[in-house]
Amino acid sequence: MKRKALILIGPEFEDIEALYPYYRLIEAGFDVTVAAPFSGEVEGKHGYRMNSKAIKDINPDDFDILVLPGGRGPERIRVSARDDAVRIVKSFYDSGKPIAAICHGPQLLLSAGIVKDIKLTSYPGIADDLKAGGAEWLNEKVVVHGNIITSRLPEDLPYWMEALLKALSNS
Amino acid sequence: MKRKALILIGPEFEDIEALYPYYRLIEAGFDVTVAAPFSGEVEGKHGYRMNSKAIKDINPDDFDILVLPGGRGPERIRVSARDDAVRIVKSFYDSGKPIAAICHGPQLLLSAGIVKDIKLTSYPGIADDLKAGGAEWLNEKVVVHGNIITSRLPEDLPYWMEALLKALSNS
Amino acid sequence: MKRKALILIGPEFEDIEALYPYYRLIEAGFDVTVAAPFSGEVEGKHGYRMNSKAIKDINPDDFDILVLPGGRGPERIRVSARDDAVRIVKSFYDSGKPIAAICHGPQLLLSAGIVKDIKLTSYPGIADDLKAGGAEWLNEKVVVHGNIITSRLPEDLPYWMEALLKALSNS
Amino acid sequence: MKRKALILIGPEFEDIEALYPYYRLIEAGFDVTVAAPFSGEVEGKHGYRMNSKAIKDINPDDFDILVLPGGRGPERIRVSARDDAVRIVKSFYDSGKPIAAICHGPQLLLSAGIVKDIKLTSYPGIADDLKAGGAEWLNEKVVVHGNIITSRLPEDLPYWMEALLKALSNS
Amino acid sequence: MKRKALILIGPEFEDIEALYPYYRLIEAGFDVTVAAPFSGEVEGKHGYRMNSKAIKDINPDDFDILVLPGGRGPERIRVSARDDAVRIVKSFYDSGKPIAAICHGPQLLLSAGIVKDIKLTSYPGIADDLKAGGAEWLNEKVVVHGNIITSRLPEDLPYWMEALLKALSNS
Amino acid sequence: MKRKALILIGPEFEDIEALYPYYRLIEAGFDVTVAAPFSGEVEGKHGYRMNSKAIKDINPDDFDILVLPGGRGPERIRVSARDDAVRIVKSFYDSGKPIAAICHGPQLLLSAGIVKDIKLTSYPGIADDLKAGGAEWLNEKVVVHGNIITSRLPEDLPYWMEALLKALSNS
Repeated sequence: MKRKALILIGPEFEDIEALYPYYRLIEAGFDVTVAAPFSGEVEGKHGYRMNSKAIKDINPDDFDILVLPGGRGPERIRVSARDDAVRIVKSFYDSGKPIAAICHGPQLLLSAGIVKDIKLTSYPGIADDLKAGGAEWLNEKVVVHGNIITSRLPEDLPYWMEALLKALSNS
Repeated sequence: MKRKALILIGPEFEDIEALYPYYRLIEAGFDVTVAAPFSGEVEGKHGYRMNSKAIKDINPDDFDILVLPGGRGPERIRVSARDDAVRIVKSFYDSGKPIAAICHGPQLLLSAGIVKDIKLTSYPGIADDLKAGGAEWLNEKVVVHGNIITSRLPEDLPYWMEALLKALSNS
Repeated sequence: MKRKALILIGPEFEDIEALYPYYRLIEAGFDVTVAAPFSGEVEGKHGYRMNSKAIKDINPDDFDILVLPGGRGPERIRVSARDDAVRIVKSFYDSGKPIAAICHGPQLLLSAGIVKDIKLTSYPGIADDLKAGGAEWLNEKVVVHGNIITSRLPEDLPYWMEALLKALSNS
Repeated sequence: MKRKALILIGPEFEDIEALYPYYRLIEAGFDVTVAAPFSGEVEGKHGYRMNSKAIKDINPDDFDILVLPGGRGPERIRVSARDDAVRIVKSFYDSGKPIAAICHGPQLLLSAGIVKDIKLTSYPGIADDLKAGGAEWLNEKVVVHGNIITSRLPEDLPYWMEALLKALSNS
Repeated sequence: MKRKALILIGPEFEDIEALYPYYRLIEAGFDVTVAAPFSGEVEGKHGYRMNSKAIKDINPDDFDILVLPGGRGPERIRVSARDDAVRIVKSFYDSGKPIAAICHGPQLLLSAGIVKDIKLTSYPGIADDLKAGGAEWLNEKVVVHGNIITSRLPEDLPYWMEALLKALSNS
Repeated sequence: MKRKALILIGPEFEDIEALYPYYRLIEAGFDVTVAAPFSGEVEGKHGYRMNSKAIKDINPDDFDILVLPGGRGPERIRVSARDDAVRIVKSFYDSGKPIAAICHGPQLLLSAGIVKDIKLTSYPGIADDLKAGGAEWLNEKVVVHGNIITSRLPEDLPYWMEALLKALSNS
């Protein structure tokens, strides 16, 4: 049976940060679902569109891994679907399933209240927010802390996905 | 002698949140200076351009009030001119001069470490960050706490500037 | 009872020339109505949107002041709602209520046939048209002639609004 | 010897109103020169670029016909090269050489002071200006008055050029 | 009775390559029909829109000449309306009626299987494709081979239309 | 020692078709070089930029695999760097090293004269061109013929890269 991945996006997501894991996880044999505040087509900052389910309809138990791309999506999720996104992130965290976040993606880790005493990275522009939440912020291309795998920017994408797939093969 | 206002912006600032206080403070008789991570023309999300000095060259003692517009400017400032921006915000705070922040502008208050136990508001998408920093976040069109005056969105602009000018006339 | 302001816009209006008086007059305690050739959302040159009533449904007797921003709005009004706009402008003029026009806004003064022997200014690119209509065109940041207050460009906004509010307090 | 045509444009010209006569007159055997407020590449509203000489360097005696396209070019010419453009238009008018203007192009006829008692048409949004200048404005696809040939909009292009070429073969 | 022209376009057509022949043929007295994969408004690369019939509803016997502009339209036609487009091109070819193609327009000649041993030109970037189809590709502004008239780029437009109209007057 | 990959792009490349193999091959341990008609930054259709070497300076012997993304890049390469691109493609083909092409990428296989009797796929809009060149065109998500691996569209990306990496592990 196929493993299942969930990617959470919102309008103006950073296209490549959602598209790279999307195709990469299909290549690795996953069944990939994209979810956004509202169901239908969601457009990224660069004009790519992805078909999405509504976040409120997602049951995290149906998935093996969670991917949180950056851009403006995470703040849009906070504005329109915060409580359901928090429910999903917490569920993955509590059950020890891998969570991969990049760029602004870690904003949703903060909202879920799970960054305290966690080593992580992110887009440098939100480092102060994560530190305020108690995280230990590192300026590295990929940081793995337990099942939380974080990166900073598109150029970190290959190291981020490599770390995610390695975490899966270890578990 | 003319009173002096300082506005901090970065690329992709929310145009109206910088232009409204810019023109409004000139109308109120201020001499207004705009500063950004690098000197020269800075372009907002909607294509308006503002001539700016470099933040690193700003001496906060030269100004009476500080204005922090939103959009993507505050994160850009954090990436390219964080330490100088923190120095400026702290100086205004320590000397009790008014600081008006709107939308993403309060991100710079968080970076400066001055939001703990402060009542404030902001763009709702960053409320979780400010709460993580210890602020009491309120969903109101304008929140005044001491000399810190915050608002959420462009539609709050008239109430935000009214509160700033009132704070000045009181001091 | 609140004083009432009317702003006439059309598609591709110069955003800041409509938004600045809109927020500024709210700040000054006005109830502000925006009207355009057709009711609904109207988009400016820079992408800001304003909700508008239809010009044909406007009764000028309901308002205390009239504001005419620039950009391409005035020509669009001339094409789609000229006669109603002329009716409105003339009514304000005849009853001696303040009219503030900036940039291309004075095109509607010309259409209403009220610029003859009036001192005014405008976007310099339409000076020849206003002179053809008999106006005395001046290259100044704000020109006040009776209750007609005109300016040239966004950078004149603070002086234009200051003059409008002064005209009101005088009347 | 080849006949010579001059086209006056400015930034944000209506592309097709300049490109259609440009190619059409080359097809008819003309040597075509484009001039703008500043020499170099000028970009139209739709992104087409045309190489241009500077208007100030143009000697109207070198040309047989003058073409005035619309869009925002004519107002830009009024702002940056008005006196030279007026000099050129007047010279063509005084020497009885054909002038073809479309859309906003007739703004330059008004600036040159030659529309009084002339039958013409234009973009309907500037009809009031031309009437203020003494013109008899007609809502027709092409109006020929002596050597002045005017049209309203891109859809009038074929009738406008046909009338211009007919005027030439008559002269 | 008016002669009839047919222009085939698809989304992202090169605007001027469709608009120039459209207006030019109206000027020459033609009744001009535009057809695209789907009926309705079709938008060019530069934002111009043309009202179109559906290609599948076109009877080539109703027309005297066929025009094939370039841009991305021909590939879009190949994807969405290839068989009908091939039927139309072949019909014009078999009945000896003029076909004028420019830029990427000759892609539809190749699809119709009629370029073998034909002298022609096109946008240089597809020369290899046409050579693969057996054409003799020439780098000239206009190439006339029987009733097939081809050009390379917008700057060839006047020579292309001149050759088309000459072909018609000869036949 | 690291294996080496070469990606050929041109202006207006289809961003994801270049970025996906770029990051994917880095993830797989390759040293990846991007080359374009001119050295420097090249911008894709969606605005992503990639730093590139000049195609003319590329020695194909330095690389193990060749990747040909789609979009408008291949035609731009044909216009500005055709002979060098043909030299490179032929060299990979002759030495039996893997070539992966997607969307419009196979246009460069056609230019290199290596598609005759080859089973392949591509963007459907250029299928007729490849058939004209003697290829057997298949409408499948990935087609492997010897060391030539082709796909149609972004949604085929995971199957395309999977096939390329499998070809490498087999060789």
